[in-house]
Amino acid sequence: MTTMTNSTDGLAAQKSRDTGIMATSYLTIARPPHELILESGEKLGPVTLAYETYGCLNTAKSNAILVLHALSGDAHAAGYHQGADNPGWWHNMIGPGKAFDTDRYFVVCSNVIGGCKGSTGPSSINPQSGQPYGLDFPVISVKDMVQAQSCLLDYLGIDKLLCAAGGSMGGMQVLQWAVSFPERVRAAIPIATAAKHSPQQIAFNEVGRQAIMADPNWNGGRYYNTAPPARGLAVARMIGHITYMSDASMAAKFGRRTQNGGQGVKFSPEFEVEGYLQYRGDNFIKRFDANSYLYITEALDHFDIANGSSLSEVLGKATGTSFLVIAFKSDWLYPAYQSLEIVKACQRANLDVTYCEVNSTYGHDAFLIEIEEEEHLIKHFLRRVSGD
Amino acid sequence: MTTMTNSTDGLAAQKSRDTGIMATSYLTIARPPHELILESGEKLGPVTLAYETYGCLNTAKSNAILVLHALSGDAHAAGYHQGADNPGWWHNMIGPGKAFDTDRYFVVCSNVIGGCKGSTGPSSINPQSGQPYGLDFPVISVKDMVQAQSCLLDYLGIDKLLCAAGGSMGGMQVLQWAVSFPERVRAAIPIATAAKHSPQQIAFNEVGRQAIMADPNWNGGRYYNTAPPARGLAVARMIGHITYMSDASMAAKFGRRTQNGGQGVKFSPEFEVEGYLQYRGDNFIKRFDANSYLYITEALDHFDIANGSSLSEVLGKATGTSFLVIAFKSDWLYPAYQSLEIVKACQRANLDVTYCEVNSTYGHDAFLIEIEEEEHLIKHFLRRVSGD
Repeated sequence: MTTMTNSTDGLAAQKSRDTGIMATSYLTIARPPHELILESGEKLGPVTLAYETYGCLNTAKSNAILVLHALSGDAHAAGYHQGADNPGWWHNMIGPGKAFDTDRYFVVCSNVIGGCKGSTGPSSINPQSGQPYGLDFPVISVKDMVQAQSCLLDYLGIDKLLCAAGGSMGGMQVLQWAVSFPERVRAAIPIATAAKHSPQQIAFNEVGRQAIMADPNWNGGRYYNTAPPARGLAVARMIGHITYMSDASMAAKFGRRTQNGGQGVKFSPEFEVEGYLQYRGDNFIKRFDANSYLYITEALDHFDIANGSSLSEVLGKATGTSFLVIAFKSDWLYPAYQSLEIVKACQRANLDVTYCEVNSTYGHDAFLIEIEEEEHLIKHFLRRVSGD
Repeated sequence: MTTMTNSTDGLAAQKSRDTGIMATSYLTIARPPHELILESGEKLGPVTLAYETYGCLNTAKSNAILVLHALSGDAHAAGYHQGADNPGWWHNMIGPGKAFDTDRYFVVCSNVIGGCKGSTGPSSINPQSGQPYGLDFPVISVKDMVQAQSCLLDYLGIDKLLCAAGGSMGGMQVLQWAVSFPERVRAAIPIATAAKHSPQQIAFNEVGRQAIMADPNWNGGRYYNTAPPARGLAVARMIGHITYMSDASMAAKFGRRTQNGGQGVKFSPEFEVEGYLQYRGDNFIKRFDANSYLYITEALDHFDIANGSSLSEVLGKATGTSFLVIAFKSDWLYPAYQSLEIVKACQRANLDVTYCEVNSTYGHDAFLIEIEEEEHLIKHFLRRVSGD
């Protein structure tokens, strides 16, 4: 039996039907003995989850949608935080009349464990030492992220989700939800994702990790009282951003244009694309923890939902779940063939599955950009599965 | 008028018809005032070029083929150096009966300026200071590399090449040869290359440069008397190796197999693909100079042979040059569309051009691997253009 404490009164504030000014809430899971047993067998506790909700839960508690974020995302999926210029990461998709229509649905977004945006992660205080965990934080998996989220749903009184949806790492969590808790997921929307990481996907993450660990400031993960490994983390993020765009979208956005008149100190950014990567890298280090980057990318690389069994057998556990699988033509980080593997496994397992490969040039970022296409697909799918 | 001094008697040794044991020769260009005027307007001197030759120059001096190397290559294209286990980088392509048949042709391979394999580069001694250049080395371009090579041909007494051939950066030099010295190039074989770097190609190089410059040992390029920026350079090389392979070739070679029983220190390489990248990175730092990596990748990123004019107009200067353009289907670093741009420009300029997209899964590395296909294409092409 799970009991919880809620550290803010954010729920009330979030019941406003427009997703205007939002605040993140924090739930500390109070399952005795106040810890999760992780996939590795290790224990983690206490565990706090940052989350936000949008729209209203109906009396039947049948309209809840869990939205799951990507590698660097957080609980703030929609609306604006007080004083902030930028809205949540999927703002265009969540709100009245939008793909995840908050006039109809109660949308929950939870930050993952291992992260650094309010949920327990390597920068959290280790109760054993009174210091930040650093590398004493246990290895976590996508399955562990989902297990923690299930406690949040327990707390919110949601037995069964109408839908779990997310792109990239969010899509992996969607698949894990359908496999770990098939009875709790009416519908699943994995977007721009994979049932397992390919060696190329592992390789890109590994180079990012090596860049972080090569930074002397990383210091074996012990940097919370000193300067963090900012340059290493910035390099990791720059690699990421290349893989999030397509060759064509980079050509359209930057071409070979130069900035600052193309002049400057030797090897300083000169092409616009170089300036963009530097900007993205420099921004990221202000808001993300390098150890979280290591832990979360490791969780992604170890993700293999079939884990030696056949994918259709494993996904086949979700007998009552309908799937909408979305991929994007120019996404070379999570290529469409990986989505098709999921679709074919669902078909072999006789599950209800719909597939769409959206004809986008935006690369992996498309799941954040191709709002119109996604809205069209998702709205119809949700109405069908909810019987509206 | 150009005069030269040859610092070894390597030419004689290299006249052996089999490319068995080879030695690199070094030519110091002695053009008064012993310097090159670079594209930037800066002067560089003295300039030494490392080179090797295979086969014999005929009396008409009409059978010379200049082979041009990629980013991390060197003058050692074929045969074995004394005591070495590994042959030159295009050994399978150069030798008696091979694609570049040393029974018929006199093959020359020259290391580029800016490099660190015997030619003048940032690790060479700056005559002004008596210390290694470091960042005082002037910016160099692909055009400058080719200008230096033209002095080598002068020295070797070769007025006109039967052919210039190379892959990747070698292919850019081929194009530059055809444009800078159209009267000296009978045939050109640019392989897996581009007429200009795309923003995606620039972006990958930029992240590599940032990884190097983020290493405190880089120290603004002044590290020749201290520990070099090995970890930064290793990360740069790891990024490179991901881009040299394809998603499919990585899947075939590594899958999701783990090494060391999949156990080890947290975040140490666990998947085979991680171990491979680490091995490649660690090997590279033993043989390459980080500043050369910066200078050469900058030369690539700035390469744009049309440079504001139309590509067909610029390539059209090579009225007497026949082109064989080769691309590889799975090469996503230098995608086939970039080769097709070259082909179409040649066609618009009414040049003799042959194109082949080889159906390979090896990615960009294919130009080093798909020997059989290349040999077939190149042998026929060379016989046709040489009138044999």
